[in-house]
Amino acid sequence: MKVWNQKAKDKSSLIDNFLSGEDIVLDKELFLYDIKASIAHVHELKEINILNISESKKIIASLNKLSKLFKENKFRLTTKYEDCHSAIEYFLSKELGPIGKKIHTGRSRNDQIMVAMRLYMREKLDEIQSLNIKITKSFIDKAEKHLLDPMPGYSHLQRAMPSTWGMWFGAFAESFLDNFDLLLNLRSWININPLGTAAGYGVNLPIKRDISTKELNFARKQLNSLYVQNSRGKFELEFVSSLKQPMLDTRKFSWDMSIFLSQEFNLLSIPSKYLTGSSIMPNKSNPDVIEIMRANYALLAGCYSELENLISLPSGYHRDLQLTKRSIIYSINCAIQTLDLLPDLVRSIKVNLQQSQKFIDQGMLMTDQVYELVQRGIPFRDAYIQVKTNSVQDKTSKSLSRKNSSSGSAYNLNLKILKSRYKKLLKVK
Amino acid sequence: MKVWNQKAKDKSSLIDNFLSGEDIVLDKELFLYDIKASIAHVHELKEINILNISESKKIIASLNKLSKLFKENKFRLTTKYEDCHSAIEYFLSKELGPIGKKIHTGRSRNDQIMVAMRLYMREKLDEIQSLNIKITKSFIDKAEKHLLDPMPGYSHLQRAMPSTWGMWFGAFAESFLDNFDLLLNLRSWININPLGTAAGYGVNLPIKRDISTKELNFARKQLNSLYVQNSRGKFELEFVSSLKQPMLDTRKFSWDMSIFLSQEFNLLSIPSKYLTGSSIMPNKSNPDVIEIMRANYALLAGCYSELENLISLPSGYHRDLQLTKRSIIYSINCAIQTLDLLPDLVRSIKVNLQQSQKFIDQGMLMTDQVYELVQRGIPFRDAYIQVKTNSVQDKTSKSLSRKNSSSGSAYNLNLKILKSRYKKLLKVK
Amino acid sequence: MKVWNQKAKDKSSLIDNFLSGEDIVLDKELFLYDIKASIAHVHELKEINILNISESKKIIASLNKLSKLFKENKFRLTTKYEDCHSAIEYFLSKELGPIGKKIHTGRSRNDQIMVAMRLYMREKLDEIQSLNIKITKSFIDKAEKHLLDPMPGYSHLQRAMPSTWGMWFGAFAESFLDNFDLLLNLRSWININPLGTAAGYGVNLPIKRDISTKELNFARKQLNSLYVQNSRGKFELEFVSSLKQPMLDTRKFSWDMSIFLSQEFNLLSIPSKYLTGSSIMPNKSNPDVIEIMRANYALLAGCYSELENLISLPSGYHRDLQLTKRSIIYSINCAIQTLDLLPDLVRSIKVNLQQSQKFIDQGMLMTDQVYELVQRGIPFRDAYIQVKTNSVQDKTSKSLSRKNSSSGSAYNLNLKILKSRYKKLLKVK
Amino acid sequence: MKVWNQKAKDKSSLIDNFLSGEDIVLDKELFLYDIKASIAHVHELKEINILNISESKKIIASLNKLSKLFKENKFRLTTKYEDCHSAIEYFLSKELGPIGKKIHTGRSRNDQIMVAMRLYMREKLDEIQSLNIKITKSFIDKAEKHLLDPMPGYSHLQRAMPSTWGMWFGAFAESFLDNFDLLLNLRSWININPLGTAAGYGVNLPIKRDISTKELNFARKQLNSLYVQNSRGKFELEFVSSLKQPMLDTRKFSWDMSIFLSQEFNLLSIPSKYLTGSSIMPNKSNPDVIEIMRANYALLAGCYSELENLISLPSGYHRDLQLTKRSIIYSINCAIQTLDLLPDLVRSIKVNLQQSQKFIDQGMLMTDQVYELVQRGIPFRDAYIQVKTNSVQDKTSKSLSRKNSSSGSAYNLNLKILKSRYKKLLKVK
Repeated sequence: MKVWNQKAKDKSSLIDNFLSGEDIVLDKELFLYDIKASIAHVHELKEINILNISESKKIIASLNKLSKLFKENKFRLTTKYEDCHSAIEYFLSKELGPIGKKIHTGRSRNDQIMVAMRLYMREKLDEIQSLNIKITKSFIDKAEKHLLDPMPGYSHLQRAMPSTWGMWFGAFAESFLDNFDLLLNLRSWININPLGTAAGYGVNLPIKRDISTKELNFARKQLNSLYVQNSRGKFELEFVSSLKQPMLDTRKFSWDMSIFLSQEFNLLSIPSKYLTGSSIMPNKSNPDVIEIMRANYALLAGCYSELENLISLPSGYHRDLQLTKRSIIYSINCAIQTLDLLPDLVRSIKVNLQQSQKFIDQGMLMTDQVYELVQRGIPFRDAYIQVKTNSVQDKTSKSLSRKNSSSGSAYNLNLKILKSRYKKLLKVK
Repeated sequence: MKVWNQKAKDKSSLIDNFLSGEDIVLDKELFLYDIKASIAHVHELKEINILNISESKKIIASLNKLSKLFKENKFRLTTKYEDCHSAIEYFLSKELGPIGKKIHTGRSRNDQIMVAMRLYMREKLDEIQSLNIKITKSFIDKAEKHLLDPMPGYSHLQRAMPSTWGMWFGAFAESFLDNFDLLLNLRSWININPLGTAAGYGVNLPIKRDISTKELNFARKQLNSLYVQNSRGKFELEFVSSLKQPMLDTRKFSWDMSIFLSQEFNLLSIPSKYLTGSSIMPNKSNPDVIEIMRANYALLAGCYSELENLISLPSGYHRDLQLTKRSIIYSINCAIQTLDLLPDLVRSIKVNLQQSQKFIDQGMLMTDQVYELVQRGIPFRDAYIQVKTNSVQDKTSKSLSRKNSSSGSAYNLNLKILKSRYKKLLKVK
Repeated sequence: MKVWNQKAKDKSSLIDNFLSGEDIVLDKELFLYDIKASIAHVHELKEINILNISESKKIIASLNKLSKLFKENKFRLTTKYEDCHSAIEYFLSKELGPIGKKIHTGRSRNDQIMVAMRLYMREKLDEIQSLNIKITKSFIDKAEKHLLDPMPGYSHLQRAMPSTWGMWFGAFAESFLDNFDLLLNLRSWININPLGTAAGYGVNLPIKRDISTKELNFARKQLNSLYVQNSRGKFELEFVSSLKQPMLDTRKFSWDMSIFLSQEFNLLSIPSKYLTGSSIMPNKSNPDVIEIMRANYALLAGCYSELENLISLPSGYHRDLQLTKRSIIYSINCAIQTLDLLPDLVRSIKVNLQQSQKFIDQGMLMTDQVYELVQRGIPFRDAYIQVKTNSVQDKTSKSLSRKNSSSGSAYNLNLKILKSRYKKLLKVK
Repeated sequence: MKVWNQKAKDKSSLIDNFLSGEDIVLDKELFLYDIKASIAHVHELKEINILNISESKKIIASLNKLSKLFKENKFRLTTKYEDCHSAIEYFLSKELGPIGKKIHTGRSRNDQIMVAMRLYMREKLDEIQSLNIKITKSFIDKAEKHLLDPMPGYSHLQRAMPSTWGMWFGAFAESFLDNFDLLLNLRSWININPLGTAAGYGVNLPIKRDISTKELNFARKQLNSLYVQNSRGKFELEFVSSLKQPMLDTRKFSWDMSIFLSQEFNLLSIPSKYLTGSSIMPNKSNPDVIEIMRANYALLAGCYSELENLISLPSGYHRDLQLTKRSIIYSINCAIQTLDLLPDLVRSIKVNLQQSQKFIDQGMLMTDQVYELVQRGIPFRDAYIQVKTNSVQDKTSKSLSRKNSSSGSAYNLNLKILKSRYKKLLKVK
């Protein structure tokens, strides 16, 4: 069913399938947003008398009906429609006859998909921000609980300096606070209205784009019609890039978990529900959930590359751009599914304090010893050499007071600063 | 249903879903290969008397039954099985009781998935090679048909030198011949048997791996059990890389088509079945099929990046590696769907000879003029400068004989060489 | 010369070279920032009496001297220093003896490189923002100049609807305004102080990190010392991602230029200084500058991938992270070099109005005709079909008034909105 | 100095610098190959009497002189030449006057750079193959030395089954044998002659391309002139992809090393020359060499992405393609520098046998116990459950004979097969 050729028959379904690709499957995610934007579009058409009051009421009633039917699984998007946009026009035409045929006045599928995508991206971003808040909370709580619990601090996977579990959990808390800020910026950057720009050149109707801008809660119009088309892919690429940030942290967290859960480190443990067995080795208890959390970053990296390879194109719309939908929808679903597991998982972590203490050996205290010498007036580099060459006698400084260390150090975490940022962020939401 | 914990109940389905991901959907592509390799595995177990003759016959009969049921859509892989491997054991155990429980002797899901993937990749590669042959044929035929039909030769999208449509079609023919060679090398590189290496350390049974190697037509055993695990991702990455080559050519071909089909170039035309309309502009007739062919390269680029980001891992199996399946299956399906359209499309192209001739302007003949001067003994650079600075009088060299040009030049294509390579390649198949 | 082993001799220079890689070359870009941050560090050491007033004055004088010598090319960073950080300590120790050996108190090369990188990235970002402003101005000026000059509007590289050159230039203007906003967000996101966190676990000295935070104009401390290390790569990745945005637009602009400059389109021309010749074809005049501008996006894509592949790591510092410097420095240099050319180039573009008008054929007016019918009350889809099937008589609507078209349409660009955004952005700077 | 415009003065050096980019630096790697191919080109020109015997002798003598001067650093490629190709013509013209101006007859810089690149890639590939051989040898030797030395076998970084150090070293040996095969295929795939195809359309001279094909040891002509241009980037992409394979293995090896060198695993140790210290922590001894070896994969990933993003282009030459040189040269240099360290490093590894034995705990023997039960006739899955649920009494099977395990198992490595492959590969070289 093609709005642009209602008698089309001559195309082999091979080509039709090739053209539509996964559209219908993906459009299921977008359909309700398309309907929502269509209602705003009707209000604009009414304002310039393309639709009279009665017509606009009928169309909106039908659109609401379609929305309801779709949610109840009574209207199914199938391949008989070219895409979700055509399905709307088809439904209205069938329900309302000539009135329904007016819906596409002053718009193209180009601005229609873009406004639906923006609404979708915005709503999913809000969902992800809620998850970021929960994740931050779980890390702050754990940091507070294990504030000064000793932990061997590693660099190069080698023992480095004494640290605390408070610092480890706190590091992720601060990272997710930053992620929240980044995604907030992204949200504001993309929250601009593409509707009313049609196929990239506008239409010759005095549509009042401010109506949909306000109704759909956009911050402003995306003005230039050609720029709207040119921003397709551009915005999507930035979106996936930002979405990678919480996933990057999840990957780093999973790497740590994977290593700390090994029998050789054995610094942490997690409930059995996160572990799986082997089909051949009865002894195995593997942290598969952790590994897939780590691996899922790769899916976003893949989607990003796909987008990037798609959009080396001249100005204006090209059908290539239709494939941008997939990358966004897959990335979002993967990110939400992964981040959703984090809060409970973090809360469930048990720290093996005995092992943690055991690994903090004499060598790890050397830097503190250097600073003791420094505080007695010895130049740092000389002190460093003395400690390194074993010319220091007293090494039993485990009781060393670390209360005076710099802000953000392992023994002076200043968690209250993070907690204050967290509270502010709750208000943003 | 977990083979490693048959009473498992405590896991939330949230986590189960997260773990299995798309496994069941993807495993549908692999199931028949898994069954095929399982039959070879049974023969190996029989050889070392883990199974007696009667048991092995029963299991093989059951496996064949399962294969038939699956093909007839009567056995459905659903999420109740953890994966296709567990489904096989489950089916056999249900059908044959204790005998069925013997199937997993001497193997792990690790080597099981790898052998199924190899068989799958190999068969799909053969399918792609058949397409490469057809594509090559279509380009050679067109090159022959338009052998000396003039075409403006471009570089930098600027008019450069006179060329021929024979050269343009022939360029793709030669490229696809090279693609065939590359994929042939790849096939031979990956055609080695991982079965019998279990979870990366082998098993303590004297399994004769040569039996399955021969039965499944592998060139040799992949020997070291740990290497088998380490090659997961490694082989997949190389596979997608090679698969990109025909898609790269398809992208370049599509770029040319897209430009040559513009009203401004108007050098070619294609049947309306490859064109679509606009929902808003009645005048449009857009080469969407061409654009999606161009765009589909990006999907492989995405899959490749995803794979690459997955496999930064230490030795041995990690659950991350399970996600490699997706990239391979998606890449293969996308490549086949795209390449499948090429032969007919190429054949359907109509060349606009009048326009082609019109665009070959005087400037494009300058290089030939330089060579005329060169053949009169003038040093090349001097001749170049003379022609460039307009000091040459006679410019009417359109009638210039180009019969003597070097092999592979626009007017001396030597198509017979490509045809001979094509014929050899038919024998390889 | 190794601060950690001053007698080191046993390493083969092969390994030393491998370790330092391009460090010394890259560190030349960072050296002045490192010195600047070192001065702030001295102020912090003085505050807690590690340095007395006299010592701090001497060190700062020496650091200023070093800065001056380096700028005058009298102090050379060579491979005899391990890196720029060691060079500073070496210089101070040589100049000031024991006092110089105090400089490294309370810091590690880890936070030292990070603070230098942040200062570097921030300053280069400001430079890029200045370029974005100039670029925006050049596009707005051209849009204003050619406000209603007719241009064929393309989609799918096919003629679509009448457009204006004002719209084409204006599209890039709006895009660069958005780029400015994005980079402003990025700047604020990364403008946080890592100094004082040492090797990821802080130091046991009561350093007042607020001193350097204020002195170096950071918005706040980056608090958690481990997070500081974990943010290495994370911030860099986001940085390159955002930097890609103006380069993406440059690529699209170059694509358009490349096509519009072809003899077949011939819609634009640029001065000969942007063109080059061929070594063989006297007739050629190629837009190489445009093509390299297009190509340079790829360099950033490469740097981004390199970064992304580097940072799949557990928490804390790993030497892998040292390689993040290269991607940032290369990306910045490439972006600046490319963007720097845009303002003059844009200003130099000449529009071929005759050709532009010629390409606006009857078919491109069909959408306007549909809207004429729509305004007479015919439902959009019926009007579309009538126009498409040629049942409309009067097609001579070239004189059609387009004054009523929607905001942002080709004939109602509302350029004043962009100009107002541009003015606000000047104030931000 | 521009061969295409010898009076050019009007270009700002800003634009010239932008155009040439890193060309002159990169061309230093290519210059000798360009000269070598130029000599073959002279032979072809002599054959068709463009050069007489005396002229060709003079040019070849000059080319040899240039080669010598360049090697002795007496001829310097500087930015005053546009590129290395122009430098050759300039040198010959200066040395030989009019005769020198004949060198560029029948070629373009397009086929000139391609033939130089092919020769360069081929020679560097041979160098890398030599390294692959040495690396394989070092791994085989170590595998033999530690053939049955026990090692804990990990999967998911969790203890899995008893393994051997022979298996671990042997896994890499087999992988590098496969890498050798892959690169051998690549070499043969790209070893085809582009010279004589000029700027993509050939030239109107009866050049005998077989002369240079034979002289430069190419397997055959790359025929179609347009295909030669189209293969630019295509071949480079495949080249970097294949080059990634030994670097992928190096990354995995480095990951293992990094983990096994941690104090918690402590399974291996390496000489201090591979370790570095910290500027702040006297205790540190970090495996930086290992980490940079791991990290260097990322550089190739970056080069690959850069190439991939460059080559989304229509047929024929575009200046974008010039940037492909960088990716190839950087990738090759990085790979050679990294691989070069491996043989000595591998040889220097010391295995901590006591620790290895200690980590093989009772749980790791469970799979063997399952197989003992299996050999008593108990179905595998039942045996698995019995062992898992602790219903098996006798667990002291450490003395278990593993002589009968399958080929490639930890205790039946069949190293002779790898040694035999290694010997064959020596003959290939």
